[in-house]
Amino acid sequence: MNTLYCYANNEIIPIEKAGVPVSDLLVQRGYGIFDFLRVAYYQPLFIEDHLDRFFNSAAEMRLPINETKEEIKKIVATLIEKNKMEFAGIRLLIAGGDAPDGYTITRPHLIVLEQALAQPSAQFSEKGIRLASYQYQRQLAEVKTTDYLMAIWLQPWMKKKGADDILYYQEASISECPRSNIFMVTKENKLITPSNHMLKGITRKNILQVAAAHGIEFELRDITLSEIKTAKEVFISSSTKRILPVSQIDEQIYSLNSSKSISYCIFTYLLALEK
Amino acid sequence: MNTLYCYANNEIIPIEKAGVPVSDLLVQRGYGIFDFLRVAYYQPLFIEDHLDRFFNSAAEMRLPINETKEEIKKIVATLIEKNKMEFAGIRLLIAGGDAPDGYTITRPHLIVLEQALAQPSAQFSEKGIRLASYQYQRQLAEVKTTDYLMAIWLQPWMKKKGADDILYYQEASISECPRSNIFMVTKENKLITPSNHMLKGITRKNILQVAAAHGIEFELRDITLSEIKTAKEVFISSSTKRILPVSQIDEQIYSLNSSKSISYCIFTYLLALEK
Repeated sequence: MNTLYCYANNEIIPIEKAGVPVSDLLVQRGYGIFDFLRVAYYQPLFIEDHLDRFFNSAAEMRLPINETKEEIKKIVATLIEKNKMEFAGIRLLIAGGDAPDGYTITRPHLIVLEQALAQPSAQFSEKGIRLASYQYQRQLAEVKTTDYLMAIWLQPWMKKKGADDILYYQEASISECPRSNIFMVTKENKLITPSNHMLKGITRKNILQVAAAHGIEFELRDITLSEIKTAKEVFISSSTKRILPVSQIDEQIYSLNSSKSISYCIFTYLLALEK
Repeated sequence: MNTLYCYANNEIIPIEKAGVPVSDLLVQRGYGIFDFLRVAYYQPLFIEDHLDRFFNSAAEMRLPINETKEEIKKIVATLIEKNKMEFAGIRLLIAGGDAPDGYTITRPHLIVLEQALAQPSAQFSEKGIRLASYQYQRQLAEVKTTDYLMAIWLQPWMKKKGADDILYYQEASISECPRSNIFMVTKENKLITPSNHMLKGITRKNILQVAAAHGIEFELRDITLSEIKTAKEVFISSSTKRILPVSQIDEQIYSLNSSKSISYCIFTYLLALEK
């Protein structure tokens, strides 16, 4: 296996040499943000959008980024060139940095990792995934923090429920899955997705653009758990999965009929966007 | 300055050589637990209690610890001997470990750090600290996770409020400060402290033992934010601070009169426990 390079300590180094200091706020206090994007055919996908979100997350968390967006794009390009992976994932990470008092933000620093990641299938999933709903609100939900404590802690509970992923809801309104956004299609073929208390995904943004461009009616508003159970279609979206249809939420089963579905239609438009 | 040693990768190494791999669940997903204890006169204080809590946190988070309690005690003793700090802090940390899928717990590992930490004053504080109340519930509150996202994020808000620390409350009941437990003394000289939705501190445990041993009446129950504002005395407790009297919560000011106070009395008993 070839050496995999990453960016850490202000330089491109082999990944096994890149450790986060044990004194870092990320290690001791879980204080950090990240973003994650896909590489397809040696090209980073939607990197401008990911960088915009990354810089917004950093600002919200008071984590200054020493590198400019242009410099980060160059780092990403260098990693893609050196690591020679046609399809991959790029993780941009800001760690809180070493803090003399173990509590105060002093020296935040950028880490950029490239990791193996298969290209998601160009075939629309016929199987669908099953979601189990769980009452929980992510802290600082509009920031892509490294906090996945609850999502990982819930894995055995989720498996016991026979589910493949978790759907968070709070005070009756659903918000998101731990790593995906959620959409429903009403019986009137209207696309609806929540817009509050959740992280706004780049694929979600692309879906809304596609809907606007192709005359698919859509609405951004809260959805209750009982309303989503009346949906004609439900799907989730993320950079790594594009779109996956949902076959079940709790006891509610959705019939999947891909060739006629709005989600299949959007999926094909999304594929085209990556070209 | 002497080289500081820590325990990482199953060995005692200089702290600057100990990094957490960038692929670790602690770095990428904030999944880890810790405990923190004081060293005084080259002795770890209340290490049995800290180890009990550490192992409980680990079990709750499904993070197996490869070392036994006896082995960890030996590691701590070795660090104290090699680092030669008469007064210090010991941080025990379990990182989620490298995960091939970046999400599943596979290889958790122990890190033990010793860090400079001044002995808290043997004089009872006459000044007191000011708290600002904030509605928030820590996730997995009874586990000492590394999640201090909200506490660090709130620092500028807290300073703007003119406060020195934050008091979390949820649905009218107070729970804890980010790194301390809270107690109130009623006008009838009864000691009260919450017992739900918070982390049970080792100093809190010692305070309750001291109260029982010396005939100070106490009760473990929820306290509302309005009730605590009627208290005769309020104080916080932690391993690093022992006891600090509270001079203010939001707009409510408490008069400090140390020589007659229950908190001063408990403080002197706590000092004796460390001998």
